[in-house]
Amino acid sequence: MSRPPGRKQENHKISRELFVLTYGALVAQLCKDYEKDEDVNACLDRMGYSIGIRLIDDFLARSAVKKCRSYSETADMIAQVAFKMYLGVTPSVSCSSATGNEFSLILDKNPLVDFVEELPAERASLCYCNLLCGVIRGALEMVHLAAEVTFLQDRLKGDAVTEIGITFLRKPEDRKHRR
Amino acid sequence: MSRPPGRKQENHKISRELFVLTYGALVAQLCKDYEKDEDVNACLDRMGYSIGIRLIDDFLARSAVKKCRSYSETADMIAQVAFKMYLGVTPSVSCSSATGNEFSLILDKNPLVDFVEELPAERASLCYCNLLCGVIRGALEMVHLAAEVTFLQDRLKGDAVTEIGITFLRKPEDRKHRR
Repeated sequence: MSRPPGRKQENHKISRELFVLTYGALVAQLCKDYEKDEDVNACLDRMGYSIGIRLIDDFLARSAVKKCRSYSETADMIAQVAFKMYLGVTPSVSCSSATGNEFSLILDKNPLVDFVEELPAERASLCYCNLLCGVIRGALEMVHLAAEVTFLQDRLKGDAVTEIGITFLRKPEDRKHRR
Repeated sequence: MSRPPGRKQENHKISRELFVLTYGALVAQLCKDYEKDEDVNACLDRMGYSIGIRLIDDFLARSAVKKCRSYSETADMIAQVAFKMYLGVTPSVSCSSATGNEFSLILDKNPLVDFVEELPAERASLCYCNLLCGVIRGALEMVHLAAEVTFLQDRLKGDAVTEIGITFLRKPEDRKHRR
């Protein structure tokens, strides 16, 4: 998947509504394909992972960010640079563990559900935006950071905010040595 | 699907790469679901139509364009405002009939296939971007313009350019009277 030369000079900015509606079509299709919410969630996560491992190159090239030196910096980078770049919003970040490897991205407003009123009653366990968890997980893996990424709260399910939990699983050094 | 007040003030601009990769995941899923390319194409067109009939409100609200007075103006509007807004590119437009109701949008570069090298041999009849045809068709229908929208050329299939054909089917006046 090489990119043609000169691509960097193009205008990559688009309005997000077409994306948000297309994402809705994807979730709707998976709900047709899979009866169980868990299977839809798992499929969205897998798809996201495949996207994340490819998107990271684009992110590193266009953000021109430096290497993060801590989990905390990495979480801030995801929220302030990556979310802003790809979804047009900036979640707030909080560290939720004494060990310093668990973080929450908190979205007051989730643009991916702009056109969604609420989940159907028969889809109460659906993690509508689970693709995002996979994307983060995949992208982190490509910079040698293993992480678990899951939705902890979801406004679509009646929570006050939408919260994505990121738990970094081991030090980058460990990971590198195992490869 | 009401929108919360104040939404217009938000930043809706995003980088398109996450969208492009998510679209790829959608097409890949449909290729798993349907054996025949024709069925995938039809499904993408239907999905696009559902998106178009909802996206038109967003387009009219944010573009603040005036009512088009001819098919030619409408085709220009789709290329220069809508494509620019939602895909970050501006196709060139040509009128391809003496009757003035057939137009071509010509894309030298199609951003939706940024990460696609070529179609698999067994998917030679796939219209990878067929969602776009449905979106245009659905959006036009909501402004009382019936149209047929199809891919006439596709760089993914070896053509020199990607060309979307729009054939307006009847005058807006006719349409209104029939409702």
